[in-house]
Amino acid sequence: AISNDDLLVVSVATNETDGYLRFIRSLNVYGYNHETYGLGQPWKGGNIQFTAGGGQKINFLRENLVRYKDDTTKIILFSDSYDVMFTQTPESLLEKFEKFKPARVIFGAEDFCWPDQNLQYEYPFVESNEKRFLNSGGFIGYASDIYEMITSKEKIEDDEDDQLFYTKIFLDKNLRDKWSIVLDKKADIFMNLNGAVDEVELPLRNDEVYIHNSWTDSDPIVIHGNGPAKRSLNYLSNYIARTWSSNAGCLQCKENVIDLTKIDDQEQWPLVYIAAFIEYPTPFLEEYFEKILNLTYPKKRLAIFIHNQVEYHKNLTDKYMSTFKENEYKFVKYFNYDDDTTEGEARQQAITECQEDTCDYLFVIDSVVQLDNPDTLLKLISLNRTILAPMLMRPEKTWSNFWGDYTEEGYYRRSPDYLDIINYNKTGLFNVPHISNCYLINGTFLKKFTPQYIDPSIDPDVKFSQSIRDAGFFLYVNNELAYGHLMDPDNFNTSLIIPELYEIFTNFLDWKSRYIHPDYYKSLEPNATFQQPCLDVFWFPVVTKRFTEDLVDLMEKFNRWSGSAHNDGRLAGGYENVPTDDIHMTQVGLNDHWLYFLKEFIQPIQQKLYTGYFSDPPKAELNFVVRYMPEYQSKLRPHHDASTYTINIALNDVGKDYEGGGCRFLRYNCTIAATRRGWTLMHPGRLTHFHEGLPVLKGKRYIMVSFIDP
Amino acid sequence: AISNDDLLVVSVATNETDGYLRFIRSLNVYGYNHETYGLGQPWKGGNIQFTAGGGQKINFLRENLVRYKDDTTKIILFSDSYDVMFTQTPESLLEKFEKFKPARVIFGAEDFCWPDQNLQYEYPFVESNEKRFLNSGGFIGYASDIYEMITSKEKIEDDEDDQLFYTKIFLDKNLRDKWSIVLDKKADIFMNLNGAVDEVELPLRNDEVYIHNSWTDSDPIVIHGNGPAKRSLNYLSNYIARTWSSNAGCLQCKENVIDLTKIDDQEQWPLVYIAAFIEYPTPFLEEYFEKILNLTYPKKRLAIFIHNQVEYHKNLTDKYMSTFKENEYKFVKYFNYDDDTTEGEARQQAITECQEDTCDYLFVIDSVVQLDNPDTLLKLISLNRTILAPMLMRPEKTWSNFWGDYTEEGYYRRSPDYLDIINYNKTGLFNVPHISNCYLINGTFLKKFTPQYIDPSIDPDVKFSQSIRDAGFFLYVNNELAYGHLMDPDNFNTSLIIPELYEIFTNFLDWKSRYIHPDYYKSLEPNATFQQPCLDVFWFPVVTKRFTEDLVDLMEKFNRWSGSAHNDGRLAGGYENVPTDDIHMTQVGLNDHWLYFLKEFIQPIQQKLYTGYFSDPPKAELNFVVRYMPEYQSKLRPHHDASTYTINIALNDVGKDYEGGGCRFLRYNCTIAATRRGWTLMHPGRLTHFHEGLPVLKGKRYIMVSFIDP
Ligand SMILES: O=C(O)CCC(=O)C(=O)O
Ligand SMILES: O=C(O)CCC(=O)C(=O)O
Ligand SMILES: [Fe+2]
Ligand SMILES: [Fe+2]
Ligand SMILES: [Mn+2]
Ligand SMILES: [Mn+2]
Ligand SMILES: [Mn+2]
Ligand SMILES: [Mn+2]
Repeated sequence: AISNDDLLVVSVATNETDGYLRFIRSLNVYGYNHETYGLGQPWKGGNIQFTAGGGQKINFLRENLVRYKDDTTKIILFSDSYDVMFTQTPESLLEKFEKFKPARVIFGAEDFCWPDQNLQYEYPFVESNEKRFLNSGGFIGYASDIYEMITSKEKIEDDEDDQLFYTKIFLDKNLRDKWSIVLDKKADIFMNLNGAVDEVELPLRNDEVYIHNSWTDSDPIVIHGNGPAKRSLNYLSNYIARTWSSNAGCLQCKENVIDLTKIDDQEQWPLVYIAAFIEYPTPFLEEYFEKILNLTYPKKRLAIFIHNQVEYHKNLTDKYMSTFKENEYKFVKYFNYDDDTTEGEARQQAITECQEDTCDYLFVIDSVVQLDNPDTLLKLISLNRTILAPMLMRPEKTWSNFWGDYTEEGYYRRSPDYLDIINYNKTGLFNVPHISNCYLINGTFLKKFTPQYIDPSIDPDVKFSQSIRDAGFFLYVNNELAYGHLMDPDNFNTSLIIPELYEIFTNFLDWKSRYIHPDYYKSLEPNATFQQPCLDVFWFPVVTKRFTEDLVDLMEKFNRWSGSAHNDGRLAGGYENVPTDDIHMTQVGLNDHWLYFLKEFIQPIQQKLYTGYFSDPPKAELNFVVRYMPEYQSKLRPHHDASTYTINIALNDVGKDYEGGGCRFLRYNCTIAATRRGWTLMHPGRLTHFHEGLPVLKGKRYIMVSFIDP
Repeated sequence: AISNDDLLVVSVATNETDGYLRFIRSLNVYGYNHETYGLGQPWKGGNIQFTAGGGQKINFLRENLVRYKDDTTKIILFSDSYDVMFTQTPESLLEKFEKFKPARVIFGAEDFCWPDQNLQYEYPFVESNEKRFLNSGGFIGYASDIYEMITSKEKIEDDEDDQLFYTKIFLDKNLRDKWSIVLDKKADIFMNLNGAVDEVELPLRNDEVYIHNSWTDSDPIVIHGNGPAKRSLNYLSNYIARTWSSNAGCLQCKENVIDLTKIDDQEQWPLVYIAAFIEYPTPFLEEYFEKILNLTYPKKRLAIFIHNQVEYHKNLTDKYMSTFKENEYKFVKYFNYDDDTTEGEARQQAITECQEDTCDYLFVIDSVVQLDNPDTLLKLISLNRTILAPMLMRPEKTWSNFWGDYTEEGYYRRSPDYLDIINYNKTGLFNVPHISNCYLINGTFLKKFTPQYIDPSIDPDVKFSQSIRDAGFFLYVNNELAYGHLMDPDNFNTSLIIPELYEIFTNFLDWKSRYIHPDYYKSLEPNATFQQPCLDVFWFPVVTKRFTEDLVDLMEKFNRWSGSAHNDGRLAGGYENVPTDDIHMTQVGLNDHWLYFLKEFIQPIQQKLYTGYFSDPPKAELNFVVRYMPEYQSKLRPHHDASTYTINIALNDVGKDYEGGGCRFLRYNCTIAATRRGWTLMHPGRLTHFHEGLPVLKGKRYIMVSFIDP
C-alpha cells in the first residue's frame, strides 16, 4: 500500500495570514508532509475572493514541482491554503485515493460552475446527490501526471483564472482520459463549502469533531471555504482539526501560549497601549476607571490614550487622568471632549500611535466595558492571537461584544453555537466575524496591517471587523474566564442629581456592586444567622457606605424636606399621624426603583426571618429619608408604622455625624442606639412593635425608612 | 306670746289612707297638737275630688269643737288631711298668725273661684301677686270665733259644699267683720297648689327642703294638693316635711322599717305570694327563674303563681315549676299557656288568691324582670309600704318600671327628679303615679281594697296604678339598692336555634352575664397580668362554658360545615388558602353580633397587650367555628392568618371531649396543647406568628376563630 512518505501536500501562499497559519496547523496536527510555494513573493493573481484570477498559483507550481516531474509513485495533493483545513490523517486520505483507481488525478467538485457558467453544459451528467463541477482549490494525483497536466499548456498569465485552466483540461475528453481525471463527485476527499454549508454535520468520533457530508454521505477530509464560504470555514475551524475536544474543550487555547509571569524583569514585559473611548454618557464610569487601574500588569508597561466626547464625564476623566499619571503609566494621552475628534478618528489614531511608537499591544476598552477580572489583560496576551476580545455580555441579556455570524448584508446574526458560547456551555477561543468594545491587537500585526475604522457609511466598529476579515485575519473571542460585562448606557440620565442611583433596572449588576453591602450576601446563605437586638427586630448589613452617601447627598441637594407637617400632600389620605421631617422616594423619582430594591434584597431576608410570610412583590407607598436635628425635629414619638414590617436603614454614623438618636421598642423595653451605617433594622410594623425615635442631641441623623405591606 | 300649747290642728278623715298617714306624719314631725274627727265613720260628703261636697266635714267639726266653744286663747287650725302636709314648726306658724292681727280668722286663698264662679265678682280686689278667692281646705282662728262661725248657720247637709258655706260667710261684709276674717292672699301660711304649681320652689334650709312661693315671695307652711294638684303634692311629699335631707337623703326610708331577720323562727315570717307573669316571649327566662329561686327568703314562706301565655316557654316553665316544688314552695300554681286566661284576668286572679288565702304580701314579677339582687324581697318588705316597686331599668336606657309623672291624658311624663332618680343621683322612696312589672303589695291593704286590672280601654298595669291612685293610696318606688333590671323583649326571635346568642345588642347586660366569663373582667383591671404561653401570644378567659355549649350546639344544629374546601363561596375572593372545616358567623346571622363582641371585649384587652395599636372598631370578615375530627380534617398546616391579630377560643375540653389538638407557633417552637375551654389565645396574625393546628387524635375539637383587622 501507499505510505504517508509518498504523499506531499503542496500549496501556494505569498502572505502568512491567520488563514494560512490555520492551514499549516491542520497539516501538522495530522502529520502531513507539506511544502508552500511563493511565501514572501508579491501576489499578482488578483482578488480571487471577488473576481476570477489565480493563474500565478499554477506558475508557482510549475516552478516548484519540476523536481518531481518524473516521480510516478509520489502523490501530490495541491490545496489552497488561506481557506482550507485538513481534518483527517494522511492514511485516511490515501485509503480514499486508492478507492478512486483506476483514476489517477482527482479534482474536488462543487455545485457551481465557475468562472464560466456557459461551460456547465459540457460537463458529464451526475446523480442528484453528486457534485458536477470542478473546483481547482484542491486536487490529488501522481506527481508525474500532475506535472504533465499543469505544463500541458505552454504559458499561463499570473492573472488568468486557474480554475478555468483546469476546467478546460477536464472538459477535453482526450486530456481527461490521458491522465485519467475524475471529479470527487461525492466529496470523499474534498469538501467545497460554497453552497453546501447545509450539507455539513459535525459528528464526534473518539472525542474529536469531524466533518460529515449528510448529502453525499461521505466524510470529506480537505475542507475548503471557497468564495463566500470562508465565514463558514471560520465557524467550523473552532471545532475541526483537533481544535476542539469534547472532553478537554478548547485545544487551541493551550497552543503557543505566552506566559509573561516567567519574565522576572517586568521592564521586559510587552508595552501595552490602552485606548479608552468614552463616546456617550455611561453609568458607573468610576468603576470603569477603577477596574482599568486594577489590571494586574506593571504600570510602567502600560500607557493610556483616552478619548472623551462627553462633557458630563470631563471632571471624572480629568481626575482619573491624574490618577493614571500618579500610577506612573508610561504615558497618559487625552483627547478631551472639546476636541472635535470623531470616534472613528480617535480609534484610528490609537492604531497610529501604537504603530508609530511600536507598542507591543493595543488594548481597546470602551466606556461600557467593566473589566471585573483584573487578570483579563494577562490572559488575553497569553492566548497569543492577532486580535482577541474577552467575551463580555450585558448581564442577563443576549447582548455581547461579538457576533457569531452576520447576514449577507453585514448585519448581526447568531451562529449555531452563539447561545452555548454566551452561556459558557462552550468555553474557549472562537473565530468570529465581528468584535467590538474591548479587544487586544497584537502590535506585530499592526506593523504589516492597519485596521480601518473610518467609513462614512458604517460604524467604526463594523468597519474595523470588516477590514480585518477582508484581509484574511481572524477576530477571536475568548470566554475561558469571566472577564467582566457591558453596561447598558441607554437610559442613563445625566440630568439627575445622582444618576447611578436610578440604574437599578438598567444596570442591576453595577448598581449592586456599588450599592449593596458585600456582607449582605452572607445573609442569603442557608444557615445564615442574624443579629436580633430586640425581640423579632433583626439587623443586617444591606447597603454600602457609598449608597448612604449618595442617598443623603441626593436628598440634601433636592432639599424639599417636609417640615414634619401633619398635612402631607404627598400622601393619599393627606394626613400623617406621626410625621417626620422627610423626603419621599416618590419626590425624587426613585419609588419604583426602591420597590425593586425591596423585592430583590429585602423580601428574601424577610422570608427567612418571618417564616411563612409571603407577599410578592412587597408593597410600599411610604419610602422616605428622615432627617433629625436637635434644633428642629429631633425625635419621633411612640407610634406604630403603617406596615406589616418596616425597614429602617442607618444612613450615617452615630458618634461621628451625630449624637443621641436610635430606635426604642417600648413593649420590649429595648433600645438600639448604636446603629450601624448601611445596616437595616427589620421589624414588625403594627401591633407588637410600638416604637419611637430617640432624640438626636447634636448633628444630623439620617435614616431611610420603608413601610412594607401597609 | 302664744305658745304651741295654745295651738290645735284639727282635721276630718273617715279613712286612714296613705294620704292621711302622710298628713299625720308631717304634724308629728314638727310636734303639732292635733285631733282627727270622723275616723271609721262612713263618708257621706260625696266625691269631692270631682264634684262639690264636703258638708259632712263641717258637721264633724260642730260636733267636736263644741268643747272649745268658749276658749278665746286656744287657736284652732282646721286642715284637710288626705291632701295636705305641714312643712314648718308650730312656732313659725304662730308667728305668722300673729302678723295677721287684728285679723282673728284667716282662710287660705287661691286663684280659682270654686264651686260657684259667679261669686267671683263679689270678692274684694287684690294686687296682681295676691290670691283673691277663698279655699276652705285650711283656716286658722281663735277657738271661740271658729265655733261661732261654723255654727252661724242652723244646719248644713253632709253633701252640701263646705267651701260654699265658708265663702258666703266671707262675702257677707257683716260676718267678715264680725270675726275679723281675712284671706291669706300672699300664702304666708296656706299654699293651695291647684293652678299654682309653677309658683313653687324647693329651697334648702339647714339641710331641709322647704316650700317657697316665688310669686308671692312667701314661705307657706300648710301645703294643700287641692283638686287635681294631688299629683303635685305627691311629688313634693318626697322631699318636704323632713322626708328628705340634703345630707342624709331619704329620711322616710328609715321610718317604720320592718326587720324580719329579727324573727328567728322563719315559720313566723310573712307569707309571700309571688305572681309570675310570662305574657310574651322573653329572653333569658332561665335567669329570670333562677333569680327568683335565689331570693333570700325561706322557701316555705313563699308560694308562686305562674301565668305563661307563651308556647315557646312551656318546657322551661314546666321545668322550673318542678324546681319550685322541689324547693318546697308553699304552693306552685300554674295557669298554662293553653288556658285562655287573659293577662288582666290572671293578674286580677293573683290579687284574689292573696285576698282569699290572706297572704301577707303579693309580689308581682313579670318575665322581663331580672332580680339580680337576691335581697330585693327582704328590702321591699322592710320599707313597709302599701305598694312598693323596686326601681328597675332597661340598662343604659331611660326606660323604667315607674313613671315620674303623667299627662292630663294619663300618659307617661317625666317628673323634674326623674333623671336624678333613675341615675341614682337621688336614692330613696318616691311616691310616683305609676309602677309596673314588679311590686310588692301589702296583704293588709288587700283586705280593705282590691286593685283593679281589668278595663277594656287600657292596659292592665295602667289600670292598676290608676285604681290605686284614685283610691288615695300611694305607689312607691325605691332605688336605695340596685335590685336588678328589665329585659327588652322586642327583638327576641324564638325561631332562631339559640335566640339568646343574638341578644348582645338588645340585652347586652344579660348577654354578658350568661356568656362572658366572670374572670374576664379581671383582665380589665389596671394592673392585670396576662398569661403568655408563647411569645406575644396571650391567653385569658373570655366566654363562659355556657357560651361554648350554646355556640357548638348552634353550629352542630345548623350543620353546614364547609368541608375544608379551598373554594369557598362565603369569601369575597372565593378562595381559602388554608381551609378549615368550619361554619362562618355570617352563615348563622351572627357576624354583626360578633363584631360587637370583638369591639366590647377583645379590643380593650388588645389595647393593653399590644400597646399603641388602635383600630376602632376592630374589623373582621372571617369569624368562624372550626371542627377538627381525626377521621376528617384533623389539623391545619402551618400558615399565617389574614389578620393583624387573631383570637382563637377553645370551645370544648381537651382530654375529655377530644385528644391531641392545640396550636403550635413554629418560629418560637412553642405549643399550646392544654387549651382551656372559654379561654382565648390572642396572637399576631401575620409575619411573626407562623402557626399550625396540631392533629386531633380522638373526638372532636371545636374552636372559634376571628381574623381581626385583615
Ligand atoms: O428614628 C427611628 O429610628 C425610628 C423611625 C420610625 O419609627 C419611623 O420613621 O416610622
Ligand atoms: O387549631 C388551631 O388552634 C389553629 C387554628 C388556626 O390557626 C386558624 O383557624 O387559622
Ligand atoms: Fe416607625
Ligand atoms: Fe390560623
Ligand atoms: Mn480558495
Ligand atoms: Mn412622612
Ligand atoms: Mn282638699
Ligand atoms: Mn374558613
